[in-house]
Amino acid sequence: MTVITLLTDFGIRDGYPGVMKGVIWKIAPGIQIADISHTIKPQNILHGALALARTTQFFPPGTIHVAVVDPGVGTERRPIGLHLGEHYFIGPDNGLFTLVLERAEANHEQVLVVELNQPQYWLPEISHVFHGRDIFAPSAAHLAIGVPLDKLGTPIDDPIRLQIPRPVPIAGGGLRGQIMEIDTFGNLSTNVDQDQIEKMGNISVRIAGSRIKGLVKTFGERPTGTLIALIGTSHDLTISVVNGNAAQTLNASLGDVVEVYPLTGNE
Amino acid sequence: MTVITLLTDFGIRDGYPGVMKGVIWKIAPGIQIADISHTIKPQNILHGALALARTTQFFPPGTIHVAVVDPGVGTERRPIGLHLGEHYFIGPDNGLFTLVLERAEANHEQVLVVELNQPQYWLPEISHVFHGRDIFAPSAAHLAIGVPLDKLGTPIDDPIRLQIPRPVPIAGGGLRGQIMEIDTFGNLSTNVDQDQIEKMGNISVRIAGSRIKGLVKTFGERPTGTLIALIGTSHDLTISVVNGNAAQTLNASLGDVVEVYPLTGNE
Amino acid sequence: MTVITLLTDFGIRDGYPGVMKGVIWKIAPGIQIADISHTIKPQNILHGALALARTTQFFPPGTIHVAVVDPGVGTERRPIGLHLGEHYFIGPDNGLFTLVLERAEANHEQVLVVELNQPQYWLPEISHVFHGRDIFAPSAAHLAIGVPLDKLGTPIDDPIRLQIPRPVPIAGGGLRGQIMEIDTFGNLSTNVDQDQIEKMGNISVRIAGSRIKGLVKTFGERPTGTLIALIGTSHDLTISVVNGNAAQTLNASLGDVVEVYPLTGNE
Repeated sequence: MTVITLLTDFGIRDGYPGVMKGVIWKIAPGIQIADISHTIKPQNILHGALALARTTQFFPPGTIHVAVVDPGVGTERRPIGLHLGEHYFIGPDNGLFTLVLERAEANHEQVLVVELNQPQYWLPEISHVFHGRDIFAPSAAHLAIGVPLDKLGTPIDDPIRLQIPRPVPIAGGGLRGQIMEIDTFGNLSTNVDQDQIEKMGNISVRIAGSRIKGLVKTFGERPTGTLIALIGTSHDLTISVVNGNAAQTLNASLGDVVEVYPLTGNE
Repeated sequence: MTVITLLTDFGIRDGYPGVMKGVIWKIAPGIQIADISHTIKPQNILHGALALARTTQFFPPGTIHVAVVDPGVGTERRPIGLHLGEHYFIGPDNGLFTLVLERAEANHEQVLVVELNQPQYWLPEISHVFHGRDIFAPSAAHLAIGVPLDKLGTPIDDPIRLQIPRPVPIAGGGLRGQIMEIDTFGNLSTNVDQDQIEKMGNISVRIAGSRIKGLVKTFGERPTGTLIALIGTSHDLTISVVNGNAAQTLNASLGDVVEVYPLTGNE
Repeated sequence: MTVITLLTDFGIRDGYPGVMKGVIWKIAPGIQIADISHTIKPQNILHGALALARTTQFFPPGTIHVAVVDPGVGTERRPIGLHLGEHYFIGPDNGLFTLVLERAEANHEQVLVVELNQPQYWLPEISHVFHGRDIFAPSAAHLAIGVPLDKLGTPIDDPIRLQIPRPVPIAGGGLRGQIMEIDTFGNLSTNVDQDQIEKMGNISVRIAGSRIKGLVKTFGERPTGTLIALIGTSHDLTISVVNGNAAQTLNASLGDVVEVYPLTGNE
């Protein structure tokens, strides 16, 4: 039983995600649709790419993920569909799928990317401003009812890829990364991942003038108000305040530097 | 396979829309329910009417749209059900359905409006404050499982209608309209529609002391930061800033005047 | 046809509730899932407990309610499952289920509480920070496909219970209660309930230096702007401003005192 997910920056007030559901159900009656988020930061493709990479793999094989963060809507930017391992993705070709594509490639999974160029699978009337409704939702719905991806478009090998910030080596065997996301609780997610940290053994973290010695496994190991470092929900180094809000405590912003390095004996 | 949609001003925190889904599923197990919006401006009937008019026609024939923006809950205002063309609507008789009703009439579609007055199709206990749960959700669910609309109530011919602001003619063959909605991206939607504009040929727009010459088809035709006029998702004249926020740039508010007139040779 | 509901403090931006849906559908394909709320105040267990008590009973018998407000995630706090009358609940053992548990006990309904300790019904990998995804969602999904609750864990008789603030008697046969919730419209919900008020006959209410004589049945009985007392959606004494916002008018906060007492002849 196929599932469709929606991830957009449309917000929750104006009803645009609901419209996409209506369009999908006209073509694929009764299909289950899950909202992942409709409050991706407006026109922030990187924010959308990170959210896709963090969430989509938990859905069943065969799930079709429609993602629309689309500042170039109505221009020459291509609409695309991707088959990556056991999942499908539909949306604009602007880098939004960079992270899920790179992961599929790293895992040697099946990768097929097509330019959606078969208007018979779209709405009859295509606006210049709302391709989520006019192109992406109906394409996903046709995929869901069995139209193969390679009938919806023509294979391409040059989808747009974002430059994703990566941590860089620093003196002392450490890494300089940055804050990639700040969640509802004020937890700071970074681009330093669990594998990189495990190679360092015991670590120390520097962020916003503060220093954190060692990783904890979970919030409850330290008293309320303590600044801690731990491995987050997506295997990334995460900075938190126990029962508090690290973003507020540190006055931290997206892109702020985080340095991680091996603890030496004399610290 | 029937679908039910929900559009309310209940907000997303308190769980009231979820309660409506529970009530519906008790009567119509397994039916698909889509949220259109639960953040209509509190008690703003016009805002709800506009959102209904912009979204509901994209749902499959037979869809039942439950809409609750209901400052008069518990008073003598009638609960009503409407059959308009291929869609059904359930909610308070306070003008919320004005635009979808007028559209059905303009299109010479089937129109039936009933006052919901058969309590056997409601919850056993009717509060004075939450008819979305007690009357509208169970009425929609009974409709979904096959109870005809004219069993749920008695036909009426005088549903309340809002006075919807319309553009007025101005000198030079133009129109003076107003801003009707401001979306998540800060785009300004007006009550001047595509048909009216196309009759003018090339146009000029005056808004908040600024002047925009000509329509563009989409955001990408102008550089970032440019103030543009284009046809929006609902065929309405829309004012935007490319990759920006027109509402902030122009310090614009709902109801602000927008003037459109034919471009003359010497402009 | 079983239904699963979700109530969390995860917020709507980061996609965590969507992830829980994906996990559920991997195990229980096609099951209906309703969001009750994902904007419970962060880590506010009482707020979550009140929302559960106000909403869950409107869902069909057999519904499985997953609730996650979980400041102790990753510590020794137990994951639990509850069978209360015709409903099931899954979440952390931190008092979140106090009110629904007490209601079931008061109604002499079936009560079974188990500690979830059978990892074969969880995700293979358990994080220290996201048990909603790793333990609670998969447990609920297994329950939905027919695994009995007593296979998911071992019965316990000491679930954690919150101390819920109760009104206390005051001079003149009245009660001193407090504001428990403030909804989207600014209505003030209190911990004084309908039964207590009905025993008093005609009443007077004191709140934030204001005095309200008598209950109204609904908003429409008084002019716009009037401060009124009425019975709210959950049979609780509620303070409102007609077509206004009582929280703003009274500058009221959660926990503020509300006094109710019988009206005497000479008032």
